[in-house]
Amino acid sequence: MISTSIKQELRSIVGEEWFLETPEDLATYSYDAFLQEYTPDGVVIPETADQISRVMQIANRERINIIPRGAGTNICGSSVARKGGIIMAFHRMNRILEIDPESMCAVVQPGVVNADLQKEVEKYRLMYPPDPASMFVCTLGGNVALNAGGPRGVKYGVTRDYLLGLDVVLPNGVIIRTGGKTLKNVSGYDLTRLICGSEGTLGIITEITVRLVPLPSAKATLQAVFSDVDDAAKTVSSIIASGIVPATLELIDRVVLNVIRDYGGAEFSPEAEALLLIEVDGQSSALEAQGKSIEKFCKERGAIQVDRATSAEEAEKLWQARRTAFGAVASLRPNCIVEDATVPVKRLPEMIRKIVELADKYALKIGVLAHAGDGNLHPLIMTDLQDKKEIGRVDKALDDMYEAAISMGGTLSGEHGIGIAKDRFISKEFSPSAIEIMRGIKRVFDPNNILNPGSFL
Amino acid sequence: MISTSIKQELRSIVGEEWFLETPEDLATYSYDAFLQEYTPDGVVIPETADQISRVMQIANRERINIIPRGAGTNICGSSVARKGGIIMAFHRMNRILEIDPESMCAVVQPGVVNADLQKEVEKYRLMYPPDPASMFVCTLGGNVALNAGGPRGVKYGVTRDYLLGLDVVLPNGVIIRTGGKTLKNVSGYDLTRLICGSEGTLGIITEITVRLVPLPSAKATLQAVFSDVDDAAKTVSSIIASGIVPATLELIDRVVLNVIRDYGGAEFSPEAEALLLIEVDGQSSALEAQGKSIEKFCKERGAIQVDRATSAEEAEKLWQARRTAFGAVASLRPNCIVEDATVPVKRLPEMIRKIVELADKYALKIGVLAHAGDGNLHPLIMTDLQDKKEIGRVDKALDDMYEAAISMGGTLSGEHGIGIAKDRFISKEFSPSAIEIMRGIKRVFDPNNILNPGSFL
Repeated sequence: MISTSIKQELRSIVGEEWFLETPEDLATYSYDAFLQEYTPDGVVIPETADQISRVMQIANRERINIIPRGAGTNICGSSVARKGGIIMAFHRMNRILEIDPESMCAVVQPGVVNADLQKEVEKYRLMYPPDPASMFVCTLGGNVALNAGGPRGVKYGVTRDYLLGLDVVLPNGVIIRTGGKTLKNVSGYDLTRLICGSEGTLGIITEITVRLVPLPSAKATLQAVFSDVDDAAKTVSSIIASGIVPATLELIDRVVLNVIRDYGGAEFSPEAEALLLIEVDGQSSALEAQGKSIEKFCKERGAIQVDRATSAEEAEKLWQARRTAFGAVASLRPNCIVEDATVPVKRLPEMIRKIVELADKYALKIGVLAHAGDGNLHPLIMTDLQDKKEIGRVDKALDDMYEAAISMGGTLSGEHGIGIAKDRFISKEFSPSAIEIMRGIKRVFDPNNILNPGSFL
Repeated sequence: MISTSIKQELRSIVGEEWFLETPEDLATYSYDAFLQEYTPDGVVIPETADQISRVMQIANRERINIIPRGAGTNICGSSVARKGGIIMAFHRMNRILEIDPESMCAVVQPGVVNADLQKEVEKYRLMYPPDPASMFVCTLGGNVALNAGGPRGVKYGVTRDYLLGLDVVLPNGVIIRTGGKTLKNVSGYDLTRLICGSEGTLGIITEITVRLVPLPSAKATLQAVFSDVDDAAKTVSSIIASGIVPATLELIDRVVLNVIRDYGGAEFSPEAEALLLIEVDGQSSALEAQGKSIEKFCKERGAIQVDRATSAEEAEKLWQARRTAFGAVASLRPNCIVEDATVPVKRLPEMIRKIVELADKYALKIGVLAHAGDGNLHPLIMTDLQDKKEIGRVDKALDDMYEAAISMGGTLSGEHGIGIAKDRFISKEFSPSAIEIMRGIKRVFDPNNILNPGSFL
């Protein structure tokens, strides 16, 4: 519990109305998209880096846990007060500070919504590539803390690849600057990328400088339906081997296609075992040829139907199935666990087969969405968190799934993070010495362990 | 000094002939391309990660410094025994272990030469983009330790952007694995990128997994000569603002052009104040249009001559000036200091003006080569290291130069590293707290400070 005098100190820093503690407010901040609830002791909403610095000095002195939280869209539980403490929210720090089209970069506060930045930079014919599914809600601060990815990752990479510099408040209240505004920088240890993906455990991000790229002038969208998931996977290999790098290369498996069909989201052949949604972007002169090549690869590999959009409306229609997928799947059972196991691209068919096998073995309903171009699978486990017996089987299936992903040279998490969702699996991926190094780094930044201490370490 | 019994222990691990200590051998390993000499106490050349682990256990126990060294091409002095110790060389670990065209990655040992990897992956129509000027000699282990860049950086980024995973021997001999083979990975702290650019101070890299990209099917090369350096810089901005991202965008200033002309390297108009060498790559259908657009921008911005290559031979001829530059400059005075100050792209003309001003102020001959597309300048200071008075002025000019770069939002080093060359400047870029964090990280990995302790921290 936090004493009245400390609450008063916090209020005097951020303003009377920006420290919350009513039961309603605490309930609001008690969970994120991972859906495990931990009631915090309070919520603080600062407006400046200086306020954050002063809040952290108090927290450090009083050993109060601080858990930074953007929009709470992460699905690994990395923004909840698992060990008690104060949630720090950033919706007062939501300004785009600068867009510099000549140096192709932007400077933003952590509370800026991803899609808002995208929209602004498009006015300069520029693009900020990372596009997590939650982009209309999630914030850049959260994106950096979780190193967010998205469908465009296969061509454009993830948040880490667009970070130039950060302002960060350390747990002791000191503000440090890492990186800068230059595209190249090899000065000192790469603290920028160390903080990226650290899930709010090392410092509080107060300013972010990102790199921008030219907005592609055109795109082409195709959809191909296969009666065999291996054919779809082989098509992915053919496309990549041909030297075409699609901006998006999404795979939907039979289980999810059936759910979408039943939901009324889209129509497919009853034989459909897999669907590929493929988008290429760039200069229009090159796209026509690329679209035709992709169509050819799909047909050669046995696609039973290929549709190529010839207008923006048609493209939107092709995206329909993919966009409906989460809603359709969520409607089926009380809960849907979105997993994130990731493997080298060529092991994708093997991993999909493994998931089908696990669904069978543990009597579970598991569908697969995949960013197939980069081997990033999202197995969707349709379940009921209240059904303890079923959840026991889910846990066993997850155990086997991560074991399989790692044995194929893959990872626990491609883009969703570890948080409290996967912390018990981390020793599958890392040796005790690697984990000890990570713990040591945590101690260097945060000797009193007050920053998001419930998260993965 | 290292005792006879320890030398014997080392020999028993790596093999009798792979521990060197004759004066000739020690002299060979006493300097790198930074040219400051420190005679090491010995040279050890291991063949396996296991041997390295055993060597490190002895070094850690006996507090013997170990300085890993690839081909010694770094120009910041990050591979010399400044504080004594043993140089560890990697030419026995020079095998490409795997090229996986389907998952678009390769696994190599640290001693593989950059150009050898490039050549091998081209057989699969793939490309490993980082292309430091020393690519025909330098090794991947060194590239990772220094986070090497190169002319293609403006489009393709640097070594860090192609790293998927590492095997690393810690100073205590424990081998850890970071990252993996997947394109996406957000599991735990990003140790892979923390070790990249750490200049051999955190661990010994024994295996490297890199991402590959499709080899562009064609390229177009142009050269434009300007009578005003500002016009050249504005052309760079025009090209980038148009949405074209050249693979290479090099600038050569008047001082260097004159040296090249006098050296007989190439012919230019006597009015030439700056030259741009521009290369675009990709699908041939798009390149024709891009080449024409670039030609148009150059002429609109006042280029006095524009040449567009229509064959590989013509392209090679256009590269002639750039390739001759270092040789020509080196022939002029006993020494050439290659600097690496980097600024946001739009500050490039300002930074070039600053360098001209400093040359004048301190009576020095300074030319500029620049990877203009990413703001990475290479001021070339033609001097004589024996002339103490002149070197005093060089030091003052460097001081002013870094001050200026950092005040423009730039960095001490875009791609060459800090090493012993710039360690005294590091507090210009980083606050004491940021440096303290870096020192803390160093202690976590290397509590006895035996790994390259002479380098930047």
